[in-house]
Amino acid sequence: MKEDKEEADISLRELQMRLAEFARVRDWDQYHSPRNLLLALVGEVGELAEIFQWRGEVARGLPNWEISDKEHLGEELSDVLLYLIRLADICEVNLADAATKKLVKNAIKYPAKVFVEDI
Amino acid sequence: MKEDKEEADISLRELQMRLAEFARVRDWDQYHSPRNLLLALVGEVGELAEIFQWRGEVARGLPNWEISDKEHLGEELSDVLLYLIRLADICEVNLADAATKKLVKNAIKYPAKVFVEDI
Amino acid sequence: MKEDKEEADISLRELQMRLAEFARVRDWDQYHSPRNLLLALVGEVGELAEIFQWRGEVARGLPNWEISDKEHLGEELSDVLLYLIRLADICEVNLADAATKKLVKNAIKYPAKVFVEDI
Amino acid sequence: MKEDKEEADISLRELQMRLAEFARVRDWDQYHSPRNLLLALVGEVGELAEIFQWRGEVARGLPNWEISDKEHLGEELSDVLLYLIRLADICEVNLADAATKKLVKNAIKYPAKVFVEDI
Repeated sequence: MKEDKEEADISLRELQMRLAEFARVRDWDQYHSPRNLLLALVGEVGELAEIFQWRGEVARGLPNWEISDKEHLGEELSDVLLYLIRLADICEVNLADAATKKLVKNAIKYPAKVFVEDI
Repeated sequence: MKEDKEEADISLRELQMRLAEFARVRDWDQYHSPRNLLLALVGEVGELAEIFQWRGEVARGLPNWEISDKEHLGEELSDVLLYLIRLADICEVNLADAATKKLVKNAIKYPAKVFVEDI
Repeated sequence: MKEDKEEADISLRELQMRLAEFARVRDWDQYHSPRNLLLALVGEVGELAEIFQWRGEVARGLPNWEISDKEHLGEELSDVLLYLIRLADICEVNLADAATKKLVKNAIKYPAKVFVEDI
Repeated sequence: MKEDKEEADISLRELQMRLAEFARVRDWDQYHSPRNLLLALVGEVGELAEIFQWRGEVARGLPNWEISDKEHLGEELSDVLLYLIRLADICEVNLADAATKKLVKNAIKYPAKVFVEDI
């Protein structure tokens, strides 16, 4: 985890390891069955949806949003991410591997247009 | 991206950049508004739920699942991840930063028990 | 169920009874546990979201939608409804009673404005 | 709406009309666009999922649940139902008609087994 916010980055595996340790020291593994985690994920997706529900269409970059609303959004996006990574771990799916393969599969499924400016 | 599957890893920022490039060369930025991406995410969460819907409780590690079902699960988990990262990017939320802060916040909210075996 | 489409109506209890009979004669009760049905509901909500995901904001009444798209929407709305009613039944929740009470509770929580034209 | 709880019933159309009036007298029609309502529905599905998320498998009829938990469940099921009916209305989909047709379609798609005891 780099210090500077603009440069902040973290890998899927590091998040997975931190979540596994988080659960271990709280004795939470007993609750982290696949379907429990999946329903927790659905719950967090619901909270994410609530942030956007009465706003009508929202522009990229969220202009005019309060800082507190953007922070709230960051928290809900994170909650979804953390449960997703934990769910993959408990299912013994290597998410980094799966996501990378999916990118390749999508690239084949949707071939890129060739723009004149790219040549 | 390391070569060995067991060691496969990728960072949130790398995924974000690859998704941004993927959309750019396909001229898809016009479709990637926050609420469009959010609904696409909800759609993928639905596909994830469908994998688990008629199975009753599922054990950790998914014993007895067909390899093809596990691969399908990896794809759906990836689809959720990719839309989530893309949504954060379009909202200009630094997901790595937000997720790291959420881990710290959760650690304060749920203090770890001290186990005898940890001392 | 009245014959004329414009006047079509059906009650929650009638739908519940028809779904219970539907499951009984197919020997599906064994699959209709609360969490199985909940995940099936989430799956259908995902399909509902997919219909709206790339459209940007959509006007009331769905002007300019193809008839086939509106029919598809009707099917997905129905799928959510049917799983919701079945879930309530399996949980032994009287949904008609609960929904009526919720309307009353909401009316107290959000008092109506008095408009001049209503007086 | 019959008085006795066990016999409580209400039709989709009656709920639709009550919701339309509810919104009208609060001047809420302006917020009830299709995608706003859809996201509100997703939010309520999330709250429904949260009720079930840490419980592991749950038996039919919810034995051993606290009365307050069952009431909470009734409220969340109702919230999903009410937004679903409102969404259908705003999209000008006749939900009673669509649901009835879906039942017929499902009956054709999944033919019932004939049990000896049914003959």
